[in-house]
Amino acid sequence: MGVDYGTNSVRAVVVDLEDGREIAVGVYEYKRGEHGIVVSRQDHQLARQHPTDYVEGFVAAVGGAVKAAGKVKGFEVERVVGIGVDATGSTPLPVDREGVPLAMLRQFKDNPDAMAWLWKDHTAWKEAAAITQRAGELKVPYLGKCGGTYSSEWFWSKIWRCRVSSPKVFRAAYSWVELCDFVPAWACGITNPAAIRRSVCAAGHKAMYHAAWGGLPSVEFLKTLHPDLAALRGRLYDEAVASNEIAGRLTPEVAKKVGLPAGIVVAVGAIDAHHGAVGAGVRPGVLVKVIGTSTCDMAVAPTAPEELPGVCGLVPGSIIPGMVGVEAGQSAVGDIFNWFARGFGGGHEALTREATKLAPGQSGLLALDWNNGNRTILVDPRLSGLLVGQTLHTTVGEVYRALVEATAFGARAIVERMEEYGVKIKTVVNCGGIAEKSGLVMQIYADVLGRPMLVSRSSQTCALGAAMFGGVAAGAWKTVEAAQRAMCGVKEKKYVPQGRAVKVYNELYSLYRRLHDAFGGVERKADLGGVMKRLMELRG
Amino acid sequence: MGVDYGTNSVRAVVVDLEDGREIAVGVYEYKRGEHGIVVSRQDHQLARQHPTDYVEGFVAAVGGAVKAAGKVKGFEVERVVGIGVDATGSTPLPVDREGVPLAMLRQFKDNPDAMAWLWKDHTAWKEAAAITQRAGELKVPYLGKCGGTYSSEWFWSKIWRCRVSSPKVFRAAYSWVELCDFVPAWACGITNPAAIRRSVCAAGHKAMYHAAWGGLPSVEFLKTLHPDLAALRGRLYDEAVASNEIAGRLTPEVAKKVGLPAGIVVAVGAIDAHHGAVGAGVRPGVLVKVIGTSTCDMAVAPTAPEELPGVCGLVPGSIIPGMVGVEAGQSAVGDIFNWFARGFGGGHEALTREATKLAPGQSGLLALDWNNGNRTILVDPRLSGLLVGQTLHTTVGEVYRALVEATAFGARAIVERMEEYGVKIKTVVNCGGIAEKSGLVMQIYADVLGRPMLVSRSSQTCALGAAMFGGVAAGAWKTVEAAQRAMCGVKEKKYVPQGRAVKVYNELYSLYRRLHDAFGGVERKADLGGVMKRLMELRG
Repeated sequence: MGVDYGTNSVRAVVVDLEDGREIAVGVYEYKRGEHGIVVSRQDHQLARQHPTDYVEGFVAAVGGAVKAAGKVKGFEVERVVGIGVDATGSTPLPVDREGVPLAMLRQFKDNPDAMAWLWKDHTAWKEAAAITQRAGELKVPYLGKCGGTYSSEWFWSKIWRCRVSSPKVFRAAYSWVELCDFVPAWACGITNPAAIRRSVCAAGHKAMYHAAWGGLPSVEFLKTLHPDLAALRGRLYDEAVASNEIAGRLTPEVAKKVGLPAGIVVAVGAIDAHHGAVGAGVRPGVLVKVIGTSTCDMAVAPTAPEELPGVCGLVPGSIIPGMVGVEAGQSAVGDIFNWFARGFGGGHEALTREATKLAPGQSGLLALDWNNGNRTILVDPRLSGLLVGQTLHTTVGEVYRALVEATAFGARAIVERMEEYGVKIKTVVNCGGIAEKSGLVMQIYADVLGRPMLVSRSSQTCALGAAMFGGVAAGAWKTVEAAQRAMCGVKEKKYVPQGRAVKVYNELYSLYRRLHDAFGGVERKADLGGVMKRLMELRG
Repeated sequence: MGVDYGTNSVRAVVVDLEDGREIAVGVYEYKRGEHGIVVSRQDHQLARQHPTDYVEGFVAAVGGAVKAAGKVKGFEVERVVGIGVDATGSTPLPVDREGVPLAMLRQFKDNPDAMAWLWKDHTAWKEAAAITQRAGELKVPYLGKCGGTYSSEWFWSKIWRCRVSSPKVFRAAYSWVELCDFVPAWACGITNPAAIRRSVCAAGHKAMYHAAWGGLPSVEFLKTLHPDLAALRGRLYDEAVASNEIAGRLTPEVAKKVGLPAGIVVAVGAIDAHHGAVGAGVRPGVLVKVIGTSTCDMAVAPTAPEELPGVCGLVPGSIIPGMVGVEAGQSAVGDIFNWFARGFGGGHEALTREATKLAPGQSGLLALDWNNGNRTILVDPRLSGLLVGQTLHTTVGEVYRALVEATAFGARAIVERMEEYGVKIKTVVNCGGIAEKSGLVMQIYADVLGRPMLVSRSSQTCALGAAMFGGVAAGAWKTVEAAQRAMCGVKEKKYVPQGRAVKVYNELYSLYRRLHDAFGGVERKADLGGVMKRLMELRG
């Protein structure tokens, strides 16, 4: 079984280990806050979740999936061998000495700082900037594996923020646990925080953990941030492991509630996109793009580059055990299309129809895809969108196409950065609703990236990947790669780069990079005088 | 009386010389082509008018106004002392040895090249570029008075183009006459092209005429363009004069058709915006902005700067006799608002309502107003629009306001350029529908330009100005200035710069200039890295 903790709901699937077929599904929509997210009127950057939703969600979703599977011919519940778990991240929550989330204690139950700090919470932006600055000043290596910039979305920023905004909560927290570690621990009855097996994926990508430098950042470094963070380090963890390892075994109590056999294996968790990459068939040379409101771009490499500037993460074992996991992403993709289609008219269908009629370059437009900042490769949230080339005849369909192209150029910048540092990308497997529904987007991506675009066969790659790890941890498959060969696949329809389009987009991409570098602060002596004229010429 | 030849119609007004009151109006919509413009499916840059429309239009509009005035109590047709004429320009038409427009001859009647080449015809862009280049190579002074760049809209470009595209028409043309010169000549029965009194306004702003260098460009220079242009020079004119001079006297034949006394004075013509500036009350220190689909920005200076780079024209006597007329303009203003309101949703009313709620800087957006190129101060038609600062929350109302602000910044760039070269601007009188209707636009202009915005009392300033010249030429007023004091006025409502807004807009303008200079090719080493962040900070 795979259990996937998303932003608004948790989803459990029962999967056939022989061929990856989904046998049954159970879903639970979080009940607390707005669509499961506790927000604040005073601070739009705040986004929390109540851990009660995680616990109730496990029982409801897993129990629901098992019940539904029971109606499927040939399914026998005794043959469920293991459970894999993935979750959003970095989503850390404070727990007490017995591993109980503080928000589940009476005195903290309505305190947002005692809840889980959801991945998209940005209240800790000052702390993130301070961590980046301090690491730079002290020339410590901790940011070398996360693109050189520490994010307000990540583990240490959030914990430090909690120390600042709620000292009481901070003091009551014996330890902090990532959501993807909390769920297996809870399901397996591990109440001692020191005994929780931690995900190397969350630790490495979000908490500056690296085995080679002795785990988490040193006490000395943490002291320069805040003495209380240094004191906390000893109550966190020294070692983190990959998801082919066993986190524990399902307790009889939980097993009874969900209708599964007690004692089955629960695998060590991971962050959702990483399991999603495995479920989509990531392997050396194959990039997995999860395209949603934003994107996650996941790759693996047999040997690690020393660094990969501007790329969010570079962590051994975070995706496939024995390989280095590489994580990048764009801050907004579907979000940009939605923003324009809803606010500026047309709706996706009509806009797609208009945009499809246009040839590359024909709109005369060029855009930057930074409406929500740039996650990779500039790692700068304080950037914004840009559109150039408008005439008095520019249409909404043309702008829509330019925005799609902009996200493709952003995707290409990521792939080029990876290749520049030795992570080769030959093909791309795309997941998510946009990949499944929009031939326009996929064809433009193929033409801009100059590589075939494949679409994952499963539309639940995260849960599928989690189930695969459940199977591997339980010994049903010896390796993740063997499980992938049996269980992953792509749809028949694939998108192949077209000669003329590739040529025009190569030129448009070079113009994009000029704007990218000028407005991104990479190039301080930018010569943009010819950009508008070249766009007019390309319009033909 | 004033007669105003616009792009789609001709309008005649009977005006009271004592106070500028409009007594009666007559209008004629051109009948040929689309809304009076002959276009081509093959070439979207082509825009012509049939001279028959001009002749029929004079009779219908003037006759109609006289007839309507006849019903006004106290009006006596014998007291009409003169007629002034203005027209779009540069709108030259080829005529034969008897002054008959070639398109009014049977063999040329449907040939667009034999018609009037309307101001907005851009078929001659190659010739314009060649003239600019040649003048630069030969270091001749001819472009010093027209901003340094010769336009495809102007006299010599069009005539040269005709030589290239229709040698037959070119050979049949004994001379070429601007529309504002053709109408008075026709009305006064002047059939010898050499006897037509030419407008110094059209000659100076559009044909590189300058008294100090002996009139039109030299035969030697024209030879380097095309020998046939050099040969034509002798059949054009040696002298051009201001509109306080008499072009001729109304023939009995025309007088009878329109119901006016024969023999009354017809003043030398001028280009419409120039008469419009007079009708709006232009004087030293007062800029007149005619805001329509594009703008004309008109000023006068008692003494002329030697040059005014990037400003379309600098011509002694072109606006007020005895002063230097300065003409600048923006290629698109109302056109940009229309483009956005129609194509991107909302409509002007709703967009204006939303935009009015916003404080300066609040949108976080910044735009360039180049959707139709930049006429002043870059003189570059091959530029385009730009919008920066979009987030996932940007609304159509915010973009609309940013576009209004962009046109205000473009207006400020013109005013600053004028002041830099000694043409001082203290207040601005605005004309046109946008000035009359949009308090939002006027307030933003006041805040961005840091000067009070007044609105002309008359909404027919071109025709009013023409009527004033009819009166001055006939001797009813001794000077244009005296006529202006009696006949011009502004509306009660005026728009005054607001302190905080001025401050924010000063900063936004400096960001605008950074984009302006970078994309306009002025600054080849642009540092734009901080632009997006500063816009975010200003958003507050």
